Amino acid sequence: MWLRTSCELSFEIAVPTPFILMLRPRSGAQQWVAKEEYKITPHVPVFEYTDSYSNLCQRMVAPPGIFSVHTSAEVKTVDLMDQVPGAPFVEVQYLPDFVLSYLLPSRYCESDRFGDMACEITAGLTPGYDQVQAIEDWLRTNISYIPGSSNYPMSAVEVNLKQSGVCRDLAHLGIALCRSLSIPARMVVGYLYDLKPMDLHAWFEAYVGGRWYTFDAVHTGVKGGYVSVGYGRDATDVAISNQFGPSVFPLSQVVNVEMIDSPE
Amino acid sequence: MWLRTSCELSFEIAVPTPFILMLRPRSGAQQWVAKEEYKITPHVPVFEYTDSYSNLCQRMVAPPGIFSVHTSAEVKTVDLMDQVPGAPFVEVQYLPDFVLSYLLPSRYCESDRFGDMACEITAGLTPGYDQVQAIEDWLRTNISYIPGSSNYPMSAVEVNLKQSGVCRDLAHLGIALCRSLSIPARMVVGYLYDLKPMDLHAWFEAYVGGRWYTFDAVHTGVKGGYVSVGYGRDATDVAISNQFGPSVFPLSQVVNVEMIDSPE
Amino acid sequence: MWLRTSCELSFEIAVPTPFILMLRPRSGAQQWVAKEEYKITPHVPVFEYTDSYSNLCQRMVAPPGIFSVHTSAEVKTVDLMDQVPGAPFVEVQYLPDFVLSYLLPSRYCESDRFGDMACEITAGLTPGYDQVQAIEDWLRTNISYIPGSSNYPMSAVEVNLKQSGVCRDLAHLGIALCRSLSIPARMVVGYLYDLKPMDLHAWFEAYVGGRWYTFDAVHTGVKGGYVSVGYGRDATDVAISNQFGPSVFPLSQVVNVEMIDSPE
Amino acid sequence: MWLRTSCELSFEIAVPTPFILMLRPRSGAQQWVAKEEYKITPHVPVFEYTDSYSNLCQRMVAPPGIFSVHTSAEVKTVDLMDQVPGAPFVEVQYLPDFVLSYLLPSRYCESDRFGDMACEITAGLTPGYDQVQAIEDWLRTNISYIPGSSNYPMSAVEVNLKQSGVCRDLAHLGIALCRSLSIPARMVVGYLYDLKPMDLHAWFEAYVGGRWYTFDAVHTGVKGGYVSVGYGRDATDVAISNQFGPSVFPLSQVVNVEMIDSPE
Repeated sequence: MWLRTSCELSFEIAVPTPFILMLRPRSGAQQWVAKEEYKITPHVPVFEYTDSYSNLCQRMVAPPGIFSVHTSAEVKTVDLMDQVPGAPFVEVQYLPDFVLSYLLPSRYCESDRFGDMACEITAGLTPGYDQVQAIEDWLRTNISYIPGSSNYPMSAVEVNLKQSGVCRDLAHLGIALCRSLSIPARMVVGYLYDLKPMDLHAWFEAYVGGRWYTFDAVHTGVKGGYVSVGYGRDATDVAISNQFGPSVFPLSQVVNVEMIDSPE
Repeated sequence: MWLRTSCELSFEIAVPTPFILMLRPRSGAQQWVAKEEYKITPHVPVFEYTDSYSNLCQRMVAPPGIFSVHTSAEVKTVDLMDQVPGAPFVEVQYLPDFVLSYLLPSRYCESDRFGDMACEITAGLTPGYDQVQAIEDWLRTNISYIPGSSNYPMSAVEVNLKQSGVCRDLAHLGIALCRSLSIPARMVVGYLYDLKPMDLHAWFEAYVGGRWYTFDAVHTGVKGGYVSVGYGRDATDVAISNQFGPSVFPLSQVVNVEMIDSPE
Repeated sequence: MWLRTSCELSFEIAVPTPFILMLRPRSGAQQWVAKEEYKITPHVPVFEYTDSYSNLCQRMVAPPGIFSVHTSAEVKTVDLMDQVPGAPFVEVQYLPDFVLSYLLPSRYCESDRFGDMACEITAGLTPGYDQVQAIEDWLRTNISYIPGSSNYPMSAVEVNLKQSGVCRDLAHLGIALCRSLSIPARMVVGYLYDLKPMDLHAWFEAYVGGRWYTFDAVHTGVKGGYVSVGYGRDATDVAISNQFGPSVFPLSQVVNVEMIDSPE
Repeated sequence: MWLRTSCELSFEIAVPTPFILMLRPRSGAQQWVAKEEYKITPHVPVFEYTDSYSNLCQRMVAPPGIFSVHTSAEVKTVDLMDQVPGAPFVEVQYLPDFVLSYLLPSRYCESDRFGDMACEITAGLTPGYDQVQAIEDWLRTNISYIPGSSNYPMSAVEVNLKQSGVCRDLAHLGIALCRSLSIPARMVVGYLYDLKPMDLHAWFEAYVGGRWYTFDAVHTGVKGGYVSVGYGRDATDVAISNQFGPSVFPLSQVVNVEMIDSPE
């Protein structure tokens, strides 16, 4: 499946404000970025670096006035994410070094608090993929997905109390439940084709059977059409825009995803 | 100052249990490890790796029975940590890439909740070192340091409610306050000479004036005699021992720090 | 200055052949990639990773038949590279860790053989930028730049014997001379506006005065219009295309660089 | 097997001289460092960092006069290195990213020159371990191992011309031959029990069958008793001591390896 994704942000800036943006999708195992545009208006010097999760991040100082960012990409992504029921739990001693940090609790995923609950949800299941599948199903059934219901990220504990949240919040609870079972889990932010209402999306991946698999408590149809932009422990690591100083809020954020013909 | 540090841990293990230990101090700008011992009884295969904070971590599977770990080191450390009142705040756009992650909230340092409080504590001060000094002073005055008062890490929000904690908890609040001012801050775990009662210690570092400086709301005397073992965002990253599976608690943990003659 | 760069490669493949391409320019301190296209025909799965020099590399297996790669980009680059005569030599103990590997000899830069020659060329000069400038001048005067004169990279020793070479070869000698003076130096491959005849280009950077500066023994006019694609120790690290197995040569390689209006 | 290794270096220094030492063995899959000592006389500030090959490196400035370094360690190492005839060649597209750089030519391993020779030596063999074994055997038979015969590293091309060399030189030729077959190969420097005459030792590892295996054209007996200190592309990356400035040679270098009882 070929998708054209775009994200336009615009801010009203009062004083020069340092920004860190994370808006460049990278090519990888599951997607190929064939075309990409990234415009900043007014154009200011930008320094790009790779963070410890391998995300490409852009640093700049936004000048006073209207500051807008326009990114778009043409990406080949898989029609259907791999789903492998029965993929086994990887015992901690056999996990590769680089996934170990995804076992630890993080700002919005207090996995140290969910041991009992995760055991209940996954009782009787084969450790591994099936447990994560049960967690995804449980979230879909028990936590209401209400787009636009929270402006700030809610932590897993808060989501569990409120029993509702946006995609990011559901992912937080899913991640915390996985980690409490010693299954590495991470958050992904990006685009999803046919998401309604259209917006940026967040989901999670769990490491079972020797690789990462995609889970999404929001999605109910065919599991395909994902374009990943950033990876991290939770929402803190994958903010598409971090600004420092006096509060700055987007004037607007317009996201679009459409299917296109192969550019080949 | 030359110190001999030691830490002996012993566990009773029911089923084979994966461990990740972080008990090798590294030599660096402020300390030199001249001698080191690391014994594991019974001896099992150990794989060592470097985590994303540059800590040396040791992975192994503890077999059923008594499992004990003995580490000791002879370390040259500075008599007096650098203190540079007036060292300036570094604007976010000038921070090196590798400290940016220390600006974000983390599991036990919900810096997104402390903006107003940090501004109050540091009102009128020159941005930078002096702000962090004021935060350290405020913690020393307002939060009771009660060794042994908490078995589990408390987050900054919890410490602030309870107004007391162990060294680790005070550090969490200090770190959260710094980050809410856009000052990078990180937790350090290690040893402190003459700590009473003797135990492992935790403190924090803030990045101002172009480098990391040491702060410690617990310490009231001369700021020296520190041996760092691990660095991270908060207590989750610097656990000296992480075990996975059925709960395993130390039977004993014995820490010792003594001054020695220079081995030269 | 805004440039549109493009590189089209085409190969005739007899048996499935693993490729590693390095054809994605990254945004950084001196350039901003506003638009980028990357087409592979036929389209095959591609895995992208970041090598130890921070280059983005693309791995794939080319199937038998004609295999072609088309990349293009719109890049804002500086009109005039910084030139700072007098920028001082950085003593080795003050160099940042990450530039140290650029002091060592490498496949095509046998810096261990050029100590005396480098001292002669730079006799009497202030250590640092001025030494590198003298090396660049010496190369321009003494080594003939003959585009197309070598199919394989020549090492610094070989270039010095032959007294001629392509841009890559001159850079090798420049790098070896710098390193023999304990000045970190690295090779850059990319595009240069108005290069005649148009082709991919290679030049070098030296680390003096606390940062990297651009040097190019080929260029004789205004030092601007550079678009960097890859960095490394020498030609081995910055091959835009590495293929493994039976020899595969490009059927064609077409490079273009043109000035464009700002896309803003 | 438990070994006590030690290395004492002493230098006569005329002017303050920056050093980079690589003398701390790390614990890993095949060895456990239970005890370690590292003394520098006179003691000067030391900064330790991890290079891109994961080696621990120590930076310092040696003052004028006698400068000596004494390191020793007690290490558990395997009695017999794994040997797995038949372990298969890993096709380049399946190699993990982090071994790819070990396919490239380097300063002393001009693998681009040895394709035909490597094919001859390994004619008819199953690709993988057996090829490397044949290369090791060929080196043992055809290149004379003459301890002390070269003060400077010889490159693979030079060793092949001279048909003799020290351990380091033989390793260079072995590595170059492996890489020319698209088998990743790297140099290791460290200690070997019962080496005669006793000295630091160098050997190589090849990546086949999904992991690194040890090869050593010098060793003729049981393949065990190795303690690794540093890894890299070739001798440039694993110098145990790099000094910068006017030539400084060791006054003495004393190496010792003895078997000890288990310290458990």
